[in-house]
Amino acid sequence: MKGRPTLAVVGATGAVGAVMLQILSQRADVWGEIRLIASPRSAGRKLSVRGEEVEVAALDEAAFDGVDVAMFDVPDDVSARWAPVAAAKGVVVVDNSAAFRMDPDVPLVVPEVNAHTVRNRPRGIVANPNCTTLSMIVALGALHAEYGLRELVVSSYQAVSGSGRAGIDTLREQLSLVAGTELGTGPGDVRRAVGDRTGPFPEPVALNVVPWAGSLREDGWSSEEMTVRDESRKILGLPQLPVAVTCVRVPVVTTHSMTVHARFQGEVTVDGAQEILATAPGVVLFDNPAAGEFPTPADAVGTDPTWVGRVRRTLDDPTALELFVCGDNLRKGAALNTAQIAELVAEELA
Amino acid sequence: MKGRPTLAVVGATGAVGAVMLQILSQRADVWGEIRLIASPRSAGRKLSVRGEEVEVAALDEAAFDGVDVAMFDVPDDVSARWAPVAAAKGVVVVDNSAAFRMDPDVPLVVPEVNAHTVRNRPRGIVANPNCTTLSMIVALGALHAEYGLRELVVSSYQAVSGSGRAGIDTLREQLSLVAGTELGTGPGDVRRAVGDRTGPFPEPVALNVVPWAGSLREDGWSSEEMTVRDESRKILGLPQLPVAVTCVRVPVVTTHSMTVHARFQGEVTVDGAQEILATAPGVVLFDNPAAGEFPTPADAVGTDPTWVGRVRRTLDDPTALELFVCGDNLRKGAALNTAQIAELVAEELA
Repeated sequence: MKGRPTLAVVGATGAVGAVMLQILSQRADVWGEIRLIASPRSAGRKLSVRGEEVEVAALDEAAFDGVDVAMFDVPDDVSARWAPVAAAKGVVVVDNSAAFRMDPDVPLVVPEVNAHTVRNRPRGIVANPNCTTLSMIVALGALHAEYGLRELVVSSYQAVSGSGRAGIDTLREQLSLVAGTELGTGPGDVRRAVGDRTGPFPEPVALNVVPWAGSLREDGWSSEEMTVRDESRKILGLPQLPVAVTCVRVPVVTTHSMTVHARFQGEVTVDGAQEILATAPGVVLFDNPAAGEFPTPADAVGTDPTWVGRVRRTLDDPTALELFVCGDNLRKGAALNTAQIAELVAEELA
Repeated sequence: MKGRPTLAVVGATGAVGAVMLQILSQRADVWGEIRLIASPRSAGRKLSVRGEEVEVAALDEAAFDGVDVAMFDVPDDVSARWAPVAAAKGVVVVDNSAAFRMDPDVPLVVPEVNAHTVRNRPRGIVANPNCTTLSMIVALGALHAEYGLRELVVSSYQAVSGSGRAGIDTLREQLSLVAGTELGTGPGDVRRAVGDRTGPFPEPVALNVVPWAGSLREDGWSSEEMTVRDESRKILGLPQLPVAVTCVRVPVVTTHSMTVHARFQGEVTVDGAQEILATAPGVVLFDNPAAGEFPTPADAVGTDPTWVGRVRRTLDDPTALELFVCGDNLRKGAALNTAQIAELVAEELA
């Protein structure tokens, strides 16, 4: 290839798109032209990337002319329709929707864990994992490489921006309804104050936690829980790994947290696990409770790495660890990992 | 005994004390005199119980004259000093501090689970479990009675009122600082806005979750995590039960929630578990995600039972269940269970 590759950002005007443009402006610049694409209703808007104003083009087939790599952050049905159109024109698509993640002919890539899979893309599409999976998988990948994972039990504390701008706006509106009140002590009082202003959530999220994310699957599981299970297995290359997940929404704007109970092939030690995590790329170990150090979303938000703390060996099982993990669901959980995958492809095309 | 027993409420002016007076006013009345006792600084205040104004007496030895049963809700050191003083005068003490919970000569009682242990109290003291344990143990006790528990992995979503009035005031102050702002998207922005107004918590709780409760124990565990483990074992009569706990504070005023991964002796079914939970005393099964039904703190707060939903059989283990459980930490988690224990004692004294 001659010169730097041309990148298209499809869905540039969404919550993840906005973070994507920031990230493209901050990272080492490997791109020639960066083209911004969105729905026809957003076309013509100007957005800033790499310090320049770029006009948003409408999503159509011609928009992909001359594009080498396209990052998609659009709803599943839009990806399902347009990613193959772009791929048919020779564009390598890095897709952040759920449309292709479990397709056996589409690699699901986390560069720190399984970068080698990116080259095997018979459909011309590479998938970016779900934000919840991504918020923990870099840390688990590092531990798995050393110890060999045998079982996971995960509980999430998921931020509202996992539901996009509507999620953020909903929490902020609800907070302004409950702040300065005595709400939160009587049955249903928060529900009555919030009324039907629940936005994309089935229940109020202010002064509440909601054990539901996504849609209903078989036997009472939520789609988000199945996603974390399926994607963790695919990324780690462990198709039979036992994974039990419960997904819970919490009133945090951005950054997903998780408690993880991880069982390994043999005995583990806290010192050993801390050493692995302290040196793993993309991971920050923040684990000194005696000094008040453990990760929280308020620390991790706006940063790139997966933060890990509260590392303990399970008291009744020398082969298991308990962890608390935080990751910015809009950065590593979406835009950053997509950009990292696109950079892997750019390197290969160079 | 002649006539109805005399009850003393020690710590009547605290957050739990206030709920206790409500509960005593609502339940079937088994008591003769109800005497209210608090620190000398609160003595002389008048509080309403059973529709009558009662003057608060100062805590001293004479305050227990003629008392049959005393419910203590005071700091550990106050219980450690005064519960034995009351017991030495023949008062049966029901203590809600941590001072005696793991004492082998003090029963740790949850009436729905181990009522029979209340009579075996060589020190004249009966302990009420920690609020976090209590918010889930009634549901687990019912499942254990049928299936036989073999392992627990628990993650908590704990309300700020677990830290008393100071916890509630802190969350409310922080919420008024973050409501109406764009905070929660930049590294440290919530921390800077909250400053040193963190109250009893090590980090901001508004727009955040904090994976820490209590004090530091060995090997990185928090006291709250060890408490849930130790107390669950004692209440269930399973001193060797493997229990892994991670305790996390969330911005909810009242009602603790938990995700529970519970492994049993043999195969379990969702239908079977739902039937057990639907008929267990003190439990409400609220589990129909297709109709939007799963428990949240906003539903459970101010109510007596333990709410259980999201009942799923673990996909890779037919002997295990995943559950989401909510319990009002000031009612069943503290005042209500204490009142229930006191009523068991009153029945025995009658």
